[in-house]
Amino acid sequence: MKESYTKSERTKQYIIEKTAPIFNTKGYAGTFLSDMTEATGLTKGSIYGNFANKDEVAVAAFDYNFARVNAYVKAKILVADSSIDRLMVYPQVYRDFLKIPFLQPGCPILNTAIEADDTHPQLRERATNALVFWKKSIENQVMRGIDRDEIKETTDPTEVAVVIISMIEGAIMQAKVTGKSTELRVAMKFLEKIINGISV
Amino acid sequence: MKESYTKSERTKQYIIEKTAPIFNTKGYAGTFLSDMTEATGLTKGSIYGNFANKDEVAVAAFDYNFARVNAYVKAKILVADSSIDRLMVYPQVYRDFLKIPFLQPGCPILNTAIEADDTHPQLRERATNALVFWKKSIENQVMRGIDRDEIKETTDPTEVAVVIISMIEGAIMQAKVTGKSTELRVAMKFLEKIINGISV
Repeated sequence: MKESYTKSERTKQYIIEKTAPIFNTKGYAGTFLSDMTEATGLTKGSIYGNFANKDEVAVAAFDYNFARVNAYVKAKILVADSSIDRLMVYPQVYRDFLKIPFLQPGCPILNTAIEADDTHPQLRERATNALVFWKKSIENQVMRGIDRDEIKETTDPTEVAVVIISMIEGAIMQAKVTGKSTELRVAMKFLEKIINGISV
Repeated sequence: MKESYTKSERTKQYIIEKTAPIFNTKGYAGTFLSDMTEATGLTKGSIYGNFANKDEVAVAAFDYNFARVNAYVKAKILVADSSIDRLMVYPQVYRDFLKIPFLQPGCPILNTAIEADDTHPQLRERATNALVFWKKSIENQVMRGIDRDEIKETTDPTEVAVVIISMIEGAIMQAKVTGKSTELRVAMKFLEKIINGISV
């Protein structure tokens, strides 16, 4: 945290960090003011002195949760060199996501998308932008691989991105609701075969 | 509806039919008593005279929504003969799910699973059972295809089931939140390739 952060900025950041896991676990509609005061130890006045309303906290919490997952995955991608190894980070990370503490409530994009699609335009837009960003990253990774002769040039970057994202999100849903990782492991093993199949 | 249904059974069924789309759209936490009285035109007393509480309505609404999707898909599967054609029903139905009125709020399993996984054990169990049922149906379809020499005998029924379910649910999430069917079409086209790939 920058030293120049004001007290108000620090309080806002504190509220975001403490409430972000709750929004990811209980959802927007399922998170109440009492959850926020309990998690932060702050009063209603203090929370709403720093945020206009619950929506503003929820949006900041989503941004925080997404940035955290993104940083976690990106760190692993950057230490891999080949484009194939970089794509393999996805099945490798998500195979064990139930064991990664901050990912235990599940994928923030998936959780937010499913709740917000018909009910909350602002959160819906955030989840959409996160998906677009993720898809673009995978497409760029595939194009980089084609340029570097690591990935077959007939590969469709969009298809690879959609398959990776769909398989991960669909498998996370199954793992979360059943509490078992059987389906997740089968899905991630299949994803590895797909990624190996586009290797030169 | 059977003629022998009592007035109370008819009222219960009426409440379920009217509230089921709301639970699938707004979720459990996002559906309020006012939504239920508005959708049914009934009073609070009438609704809670027929159901013990909101949970009981929500569980009945999930069962109703799942039975409806299941009947819709099953009708199409039963008119297909070969096991490959039967599996193809999934990408064919879900490619256009945004145009199927009662599926517009999305897949009831996905919607319920994501909300209930960390918050509502009873709904979570319902969603889990629905997933187990769906997975078993696909596995049985694949085994039938192997028996009938329509599907390669090296095919892993569980892998096919997990891939179909994951791709559909992950792609529905993307289509619902973005409001576009681009990713859904790419995903369902890929699924058709996978299904064709296991054909003898």
